Amino acid sequence: MDEINFAVLGTGGIGRRTLEVSKDKEALTPVAACDRHGVAIDHDGLDVDELLKATEGNIASDPENRDIATDGGSTAVKGGIKQTGENGGVIASSQADSSETPIGDIIAESGQIDAVLIALPNFEHDFIPRVADRFAEANYSGVLVDVLKRSRVITMLDDRMETFKEKGITFVCGAGATPGFLTGAAAIAAQSFVEIEAVEIWWGVGLKSGYKDNRGTVREDIAHLPEYNIQDARDMSDGEIEAIIDEHDGVLEFEDMEHADDILLERAGICNAEDVTVSGILDVTSDEKPTTTTVRVTGKTFDGETGTNTFQLDNNTSMEANVNGPALGYLKTGVRRNQAGEYGVFGPVDLMPGF
Amino acid sequence: MDEINFAVLGTGGIGRRTLEVSKDKEALTPVAACDRHGVAIDHDGLDVDELLKATEGNIASDPENRDIATDGGSTAVKGGIKQTGENGGVIASSQADSSETPIGDIIAESGQIDAVLIALPNFEHDFIPRVADRFAEANYSGVLVDVLKRSRVITMLDDRMETFKEKGITFVCGAGATPGFLTGAAAIAAQSFVEIEAVEIWWGVGLKSGYKDNRGTVREDIAHLPEYNIQDARDMSDGEIEAIIDEHDGVLEFEDMEHADDILLERAGICNAEDVTVSGILDVTSDEKPTTTTVRVTGKTFDGETGTNTFQLDNNTSMEANVNGPALGYLKTGVRRNQAGEYGVFGPVDLMPGF
Repeated sequence: MDEINFAVLGTGGIGRRTLEVSKDKEALTPVAACDRHGVAIDHDGLDVDELLKATEGNIASDPENRDIATDGGSTAVKGGIKQTGENGGVIASSQADSSETPIGDIIAESGQIDAVLIALPNFEHDFIPRVADRFAEANYSGVLVDVLKRSRVITMLDDRMETFKEKGITFVCGAGATPGFLTGAAAIAAQSFVEIEAVEIWWGVGLKSGYKDNRGTVREDIAHLPEYNIQDARDMSDGEIEAIIDEHDGVLEFEDMEHADDILLERAGICNAEDVTVSGILDVTSDEKPTTTTVRVTGKTFDGETGTNTFQLDNNTSMEANVNGPALGYLKTGVRRNQAGEYGVFGPVDLMPGF
Repeated sequence: MDEINFAVLGTGGIGRRTLEVSKDKEALTPVAACDRHGVAIDHDGLDVDELLKATEGNIASDPENRDIATDGGSTAVKGGIKQTGENGGVIASSQADSSETPIGDIIAESGQIDAVLIALPNFEHDFIPRVADRFAEANYSGVLVDVLKRSRVITMLDDRMETFKEKGITFVCGAGATPGFLTGAAAIAAQSFVEIEAVEIWWGVGLKSGYKDNRGTVREDIAHLPEYNIQDARDMSDGEIEAIIDEHDGVLEFEDMEHADDILLERAGICNAEDVTVSGILDVTSDEKPTTTTVRVTGKTFDGETGTNTFQLDNNTSMEANVNGPALGYLKTGVRRNQAGEYGVFGPVDLMPGF
């Protein structure tokens, strides 16, 4: 396969680490990155080391500083220039320019971009779909990838299926750790069986030293606790988020989360959505995982036996490693599908072999 | 995806079980099957139950009865009409006709066939490549799938890459349990890492009641023992094979086999072939697996940790279930690739997402 270039929307935890992991991937060149403050574009390839250094600490969490429009440079931000990062965002990089329309700037050059990873805070369910709309309106033909988690976003993307097909967009949704890595593993594990009875995804994340870089993710996770919803999580201040974490002594346990794994496995014909459960434990007090991330697929074989195939991630593999490797892998696969003329909305499982 | 129809060359253990498993797969219709005696073709779909019943016990093992030309009906068989099966092969089915050119008969109608699973004994390394040549010569444009194991066959197929591309053939090689299922799982498990240190595939097969149906596989496995090679295994009588099994008290242990998993993982860019080992234990005295089939992928994450991700198949899943589910899954994926205009030779890993 030829060289692939890609852009990253958002230079928070996921965006920055994707840039970092891409250094280890042959034939994959990051050419654009943006945050609310500005944009860096270089079609010959960004200097990732310089950009990463400049955007250290560049993590959104406080909703006052969150950009909830699908574009908007610094003047559009409610709280003004974001102060969380030491350097005030991507414009601290010598490769970046300040912009009031950073996403628009990337869209303007998207004719030369194979794939776009959308790594933006996603507190509005329709935020990523609306970003996709903007690419479609600009007649982008290429790959869009997100690492979303919530089931209901998939339906919103599916509503745009015809537009994507018309424009030549291959949208790969839920391409992170779970869904993404773990739904892919479930699809593989399912191949022993002619009928799937249960897919149980159980994750453990230890996030002590990584907490600062992943506050957006933690905030979104809190919305999965039974006592809270996504609106609560969005409206809370950082202080309130901290208080909830403290109440739980830094260890949050989640049961049967609304995670798109279910709908993604169902739409690929692996099993019924109601047979999929996603649960896990997040520990922000330790870097050790509180439990081993495990996928268990139980089914019936053609010869009438019932069994459970198991996929386990080593406790030494960080959440970050398990999000960004798969995201880039699915991105590459998306480009291959796009080049073969396959457009529309694809979950990770749709990109796997098998039934 | 639209309805897919397929043919099976060979109605031994793998061929018959593929037909059986296809009954559980939606949108997948078997339309042709053959053995050395004859051929059954029905473009509206074969009656699988009738065919399976008729071909019970139809398993090649004795080399005297093995057809080593790439075609040849009963007159071409050295030992005459095969006597192993109770019913003398596929012609016992009311759907089949006797033929001296059963493969040729399927090739003659291959314009209407999406995919062909090659489930023939493979004691000559170039046997499957030569079968592919015949399809290519007849200008077949579609999918060929095999479940081969030996590394060196891949090279022979790669030599035909240009022909396949010219004709519009998508050849999916090594699409059984290992390679196939387990290399696919290894590719998924590798996604946590930016550098792979080792892929260890360790399989267990308990084959007491299934022994009769899998003598071809057992014979081929014996060629992997350090004391024997493929020529020995081919030349041995059934009695000599039995003697070797008895010498080992029915339990054969294999270390670092020549299995195509290595080359298939390397060609897909996952790791170096020399970092892949395939070993396992075959027990023909018990249906219990002597050891749990496990894939261990060890690598380094982007953030510098070393870890091992693990994939385990339940002991309750039979070798048969783990060959035929993946084979049909890869077949379907092959058809999708073929329809998208991707031709050439693809290993299971080439059909997976990821780098």
